[in-house]
This record gives sequence, C-alpha cells and structure tokens, in this order.
Amino acid sequence: MSEYLNTRYRDLSPYTPGEQPLDKAYIKLNTNENPYPPGPGVLNALNEAAVKDLRLYEDPDNRMVIQALAEHYGVKPSQVCVTCGSDEALDLAIMAFGEDGFAFPDLTYNFYKVFCQLHNTSMQVIPLNEDFTIEVGRYCGIGRGVILANPNAPTGLVLSPEQIEQILKSDPHHVVIVDEAYIDFSESGSMIPYVNRYPNLLVVQTFSKSRSLAGARVGYAIGSESLISDLERIRNAMNPYGLSRLSQAAAVAAVHEQEYYDENCRRVISSRNWFIRKLEELGFSVLPSHTNFVLAQSDRIDGKVLYQKLKDRGILVRYFPDARIASAVRISIGTDEDMHQAAEKIREVLAEWNASQK
Amino acid sequence: MSEYLNTRYRDLSPYTPGEQPLDKAYIKLNTNENPYPPGPGVLNALNEAAVKDLRLYEDPDNRMVIQALAEHYGVKPSQVCVTCGSDEALDLAIMAFGEDGFAFPDLTYNFYKVFCQLHNTSMQVIPLNEDFTIEVGRYCGIGRGVILANPNAPTGLVLSPEQIEQILKSDPHHVVIVDEAYIDFSESGSMIPYVNRYPNLLVVQTFSKSRSLAGARVGYAIGSESLISDLERIRNAMNPYGLSRLSQAAAVAAVHEQEYYDENCRRVISSRNWFIRKLEELGFSVLPSHTNFVLAQSDRIDGKVLYQKLKDRGILVRYFPDARIASAVRISIGTDEDMHQAAEKIREVLAEWNASQK
Repeated sequence: MSEYLNTRYRDLSPYTPGEQPLDKAYIKLNTNENPYPPGPGVLNALNEAAVKDLRLYEDPDNRMVIQALAEHYGVKPSQVCVTCGSDEALDLAIMAFGEDGFAFPDLTYNFYKVFCQLHNTSMQVIPLNEDFTIEVGRYCGIGRGVILANPNAPTGLVLSPEQIEQILKSDPHHVVIVDEAYIDFSESGSMIPYVNRYPNLLVVQTFSKSRSLAGARVGYAIGSESLISDLERIRNAMNPYGLSRLSQAAAVAAVHEQEYYDENCRRVISSRNWFIRKLEELGFSVLPSHTNFVLAQSDRIDGKVLYQKLKDRGILVRYFPDARIASAVRISIGTDEDMHQAAEKIREVLAEWNASQK
Repeated sequence: MSEYLNTRYRDLSPYTPGEQPLDKAYIKLNTNENPYPPGPGVLNALNEAAVKDLRLYEDPDNRMVIQALAEHYGVKPSQVCVTCGSDEALDLAIMAFGEDGFAFPDLTYNFYKVFCQLHNTSMQVIPLNEDFTIEVGRYCGIGRGVILANPNAPTGLVLSPEQIEQILKSDPHHVVIVDEAYIDFSESGSMIPYVNRYPNLLVVQTFSKSRSLAGARVGYAIGSESLISDLERIRNAMNPYGLSRLSQAAAVAAVHEQEYYDENCRRVISSRNWFIRKLEELGFSVLPSHTNFVLAQSDRIDGKVLYQKLKDRGILVRYFPDARIASAVRISIGTDEDMHQAAEKIREVLAEWNASQK
C-alpha cells in the first residue's frame, strides 16, 4: 500500500476468484464454466474481418447486442443494459440503487459484499436457514434493496418466481436485483417475464455459463426502462467502451444460435443428475442443484482436504472458508467423461482417507 | 431517471463519445483511431483455438500481458497494471489517489472531469495559456494530484519530460498521472523511464492508438510497485475479470510485433505533416501536433459548420462545444488517401462557404 492511497479504500477486501491455472493440466471443475465450446456462429463471427476491424472503437452503446437480447426475451431495447460481464451489471446496480443499502444472504456470491464495501453501501446480511434455503419473509418490507442470486451459489437452490414476487410486492420503493447467472440450468423460471409488472425488479444474467462465453466477458441487466436508463447513466460516466468489438460480435452470434446452448444445458443437467447419484452412493449429502455445479458435503472429510487431494490428482474443485460449509466442496459439472473421472478420483481419495484415519 | 436512483448520481453528466456510426459509409476521422489494421501476430493469436477457449474464464491477473509489457518497457511485472482500456486505468487512479482532489487543464480529455464527478473527487480546472500551452508552474506545489494528458488532447501539444519532472518534484506527496495515449506519435519521450525515480509518477498508456487495437479495449498503468498494488487492490474489488481472453491474446501478440506498429506510427506522422501543410495552405492555423490528430482553426468558418458540411460529404471529424475552440475541428490522421480526400473536401466546403457569405 502506498502513502497515496485514499483512506476510503484502505480496508477493501477484494473478491477471491477461483484459481485460473495457466498450465492447463487440470480437469477444471472449480469456476462453473461450461464444458462445451461456443457454437459455430461465434467462431464465424470472430473471423478475420472482425479482427482487422479491431483498429476501430466498437459501438459504445452495444446496440447490436441489445437488439439481439431484446428480441430474444421479448422486451424493448431500452429495457436492456449490456455490461462487461454480469459483475459490471451488479456493480452498476449497487451504485445506482444502493442509497438505503442492500440485504443478501450470508452464503451467496461473494461479490455483493465486495461491491457494497467499494461503494460505501450499507449491508444487511441475512443467514440462510439450517437447510440452506432462503427464508423469503426475512427479505420482505425491510426498507432497503435486496440482492438474490437465483439459483443461489454455492448452494444451487432456487426460489420460485412467486416467492420473489412476495419480496417485490412487499416494498415497491426499493429495487430487488435477481442475479440469474445459473437460471438456464434450472427448471424454475426466469424473472424476465415479470419486469413489466414490477418497476422495482432488475434481472441480471450472463453469457459466461449457459452460453459458454466466460472468457468473453458479457453480461446484461433487464428491467423497466427507467431502471435501465439509470444504469446507462452511470455506465456512460464510468466505462462506456467496456465491451470489446470481439465480445460484442461473439454475444450477438451466441443469441442467434440459442438452440445450440439449450442443448448443451440439457447435457449438463443430465451429467449433473448422474453425478449427484454417484456422490450420494459415496456417502455425500448433495443439495438439489438447479445450476451447473453441486455442493457436496461429507461427514468424513473436510472440504479443504478433499480439494487438496483432488488437486494432487489433477482435478480442481472449490472449497470455502465459511464455517457453515467447511465440510463441503463445490464441483462444477463438466463433460460426462470429466464427471466419471471426478467420481473415480473422489472414490480413491475417500478410500485412502478412511484407511489413514483408522 | 427512476425514483430509485441514488441521489449521489442524479447530476452526473456522462462523457460524450465521438460518433460510432454503424452504417460504415464514412471516412472516419473523428475518434483518433489508427488507419492501419492490427498486425499478423494479432490475427494469428485470435485463431480458432483461442475462440474455442472462450468457454473458460481468462486469467484475471492478466499475467501474460503484464509480462510482455514489463519486458518491453524494462520494468518489473509488479510495476504494471493492465486494464479494460486506459479509461479504466484512469478511473482506478482517480479513485486510488484522489483524496485531496486533482488538477487538470480546462481543455483536455473530458473523462477526467467525469471520473472526478463520479467519485466525488474535488477538481481544480486550470486554464491553458492563450496559445493552448500548459503553464507548468501552475501545477507545482498545489497540494493535490495532477492529471496531464501528454501530448494533450485536443490540442496535440506536448510537455517535455523535464517540465513534468518539475511538477513531480514540487510535491512528492501527491500523485501525477501522465496520460500518454498519444505519446508514440510524438518526438518527446515517455515518462516510463522515470517511474523508478519518482514514486509519485503514474504513467497511463493504451493499445487503442499506436497499436491499432481500439476495439479490443486494453490499457495499462506503469509506476512504482506500491502505486500499482493500490490500483490492483481496487481493480480486484471492482472488475477483476475486466479483460476478455481475446483482448489479452491480442495485446500479448501486439507487444511482440512492436516494429510493425512503430512503422505505422512513422506513416501516420508523415501523413500528418503533409496534411498540416495542406490545411495551412487552405488558411487554417494548426497547432504543432504530437499526436495522430490535428486541431485546425479557421477565422472563416465555425467548427460545427465545417463538421456538418464534411459529414454531408462522407467525412466524419469532431468539433467541441468549448467556446475557446468553437472555431476548430479535430481531425484524426488516416491513410494518405483519406487525408487527400479530406483536404479536397475541406477545400470544396470552404469555396462554397466563401461564396455563400458574399
């Protein structure tokens, strides 16, 4: 830290991203990436012409991406704000709508807390129930904004649209941000069809998970025209040229080949359901996942120990420092082959660990 | 504006970017882009494999880009922070080092003011001299940070390293940010070789101009290790995954083919010098440009009028609302062919205008 650093940022504790090893020797099941590559439309869109045009600034208004998303979701273009990953959408929304602070669960995406700290926004952290479900009543009429990851991470559990409507109705004067990064892996519906009914509803989604574009950094928020104009106001004062020409081209192409990604989602869900049964056979308790990852707990082995022993065997998963899930690992769903290997290595680790503990 | 918008951001006046028309029918000399495409190394780097890997998050620490830049500029990797365009580097620096506010010229890159407003950072706006030069003494020992675009925009004028050293020495307790977006088009030297001498010096550069990658959104800051660690602290709390996998690949490749871009800079400088003589023949007064644009003033035609009449003829340039340069247009330097056409169209417009004013 230098002598020059603004005192306001001296206590900032940054987000800890999952490992992104450069050596590539791992089966990577630690950051909830999609195991399938982007579709042929994305590859075509990033052709030589697109690369040559890199000398030119892209459209700072992201008009082509907005148009594609608006058509896909049946909303007006003025109801869509496109951002550099969904993290930027969350950042903008917390800046824009955080005057009275935000409430969110104790176990959820860690970035909500980081953004609130960054912008000096007051936080109310509401513990999940014992069974990791969200107690909807505790978010109703609390006089501040609400941020919910739905499905939630790292639990994988989902609320129904009706449950979220309860919160929206309970306090029309505060915004409810629904972060739907994983919604395409869930049978529960998106809140996007509700944005015209609730002016205080902002839905945030990403191209990083179901659309296989984590490395392209594209997210978006959908809501009422006035909420979106607020986000655009701040975006234009902060980072109007946030999305590269290549990322815009990739995003437009991806929306136009939605069926390819829908099919991949079905494959991931099928692999997930197989893997959950395997883990249960191995003695884990696994929360019913509505995402492309599972949270698996064992009363026999600590999450950090299992993480390390799997890493030694070439498989990256994620553990968390929170005491409530210290016995858990979060495992992203890869291809069937990845999941067979993961199940086999977990079986090996458990056998070895049980033997060593005797 | 919604009822939900934080009062703090209600008066925000966003940056007005230059037009980015989607119809592509113009000779585009309005946003200081490089007329030459990225080099073959960049095209190779963005091959099919790179596109397929888009399913994976990129390295949030930008290690490959940092390594390439550190080697190129002869500094340690821990002295380089890579950002989503140089705008993000400026944003981070204003957040990090703005506790006592910043001073900058009245005519300069408009984003400094926007960022200061965004972060509630106090501003001291110091007018340029009558001849548009910067009076260095007015920035010395003023008890706050200083931001200087060097060369400055939209004037194109440059300060020498010795002049900037005067400011650095006058107040070692505040940071001087030198925004060198255009330095590669200048004969005056970069301040990068001075970063180990002045712990309060932060140099910001971009891949958007001399390296033909405006559409890839890559910038960087170079300074002492402690200044850079401050920027990284905030970056990791705000936008750690800011730079897509494709932009990182393009940036690394570009640094490795620096000679290609150096040659393009020489071509742009040569076209610029030809174009300045042409404009002078047409009766304009043109500031001695150290950039890839010229600021041309006429006592015969208003900047906005000239802008519109050139746009009608398929050539985009930029005018500014500031009273001091209302009689000027800023024209980016394109290919020789672009500049011949621009000179010819300007001649036409002037002839027509003179006739209409009689």
